[in-house]
Amino acid sequence: MTDLSVRLAQADDASTILRLIRELAAFEDLSDHVHATEADIRRDGFGQNPRFECLIAEHQGEAIGFALFFHSYSTFEGRSGLFLEDLFVMEQSRGLGAGRALLRHLAKLARDRGCARLELSVLHWNPARDFYHRLGFQHKEEWLPYRLDGEALRSLADDPME
Amino acid sequence: MTDLSVRLAQADDASTILRLIRELAAFEDLSDHVHATEADIRRDGFGQNPRFECLIAEHQGEAIGFALFFHSYSTFEGRSGLFLEDLFVMEQSRGLGAGRALLRHLAKLARDRGCARLELSVLHWNPARDFYHRLGFQHKEEWLPYRLDGEALRSLADDPME
Repeated sequence: MTDLSVRLAQADDASTILRLIRELAAFEDLSDHVHATEADIRRDGFGQNPRFECLIAEHQGEAIGFALFFHSYSTFEGRSGLFLEDLFVMEQSRGLGAGRALLRHLAKLARDRGCARLELSVLHWNPARDFYHRLGFQHKEEWLPYRLDGEALRSLADDPME
Repeated sequence: MTDLSVRLAQADDASTILRLIRELAAFEDLSDHVHATEADIRRDGFGQNPRFECLIAEHQGEAIGFALFFHSYSTFEGRSGLFLEDLFVMEQSRGLGAGRALLRHLAKLARDRGCARLELSVLHWNPARDFYHRLGFQHKEEWLPYRLDGEALRSLADDPME
């Protein structure tokens, strides 16, 4: 674990974050789904109305991974949680413990903020599932994720009140 | 649709929101999972550091349903989204179009805020799945939801840096 550290990202990290997002997308074979720009990341992470926060893992002073998250909410707990949108460690830097260090840092943030849970979604074929299980994550099999976007979202938004 | 309206919840709605959360939990057979108090809802929805927002559906002036949501973030889109944590309409008030009116209102909010998507998780046996499909929602079958909470979360947070 020598020379491995985790810190909260700052505005100057926007280009690093975008590079790591693109690396993650390539790993997920979803590169053509990435439309984010550095300006988007700067605005939404570090502007007047932040929509996410981000942890950066560094090894010997170089960014090798990130954990990007936002606050969720559990109405049953009556407490917020942290939702981990992206977790990624560069392929050549795996085995140093960076993924675990990022999640440990995130768990400490959750504790310090009084959050009830950490949540994430993972692609079914991703070997990171084993890693999450080892850390104590549970697959909530009874819950199914749904999404509305694109034309279907516009159509509903444009639907006049009858 | 006469006498049906949707509005953003205010602090005075905290007890109504908690009542609707409890009704939803009973419908999901999860009543013993509800630990939230009215003070929690007031603090987290209407305090200095809001963690959620809420729409209330009213029929003839009476609250009959709610949609509780928070902002998510898509790193691929470089835009925020809205995550619908809870959607519920009282059993005796179904068929009036309140669920659709709540989602239409939410879709308009998403559009007005430049959000890329609406997301939600639904229990696999919930007949609301048909309703979501009719509105254009897609089941993202390749994504699996994971959660870390309770003792496992505390254990990771307490883990010393090696």
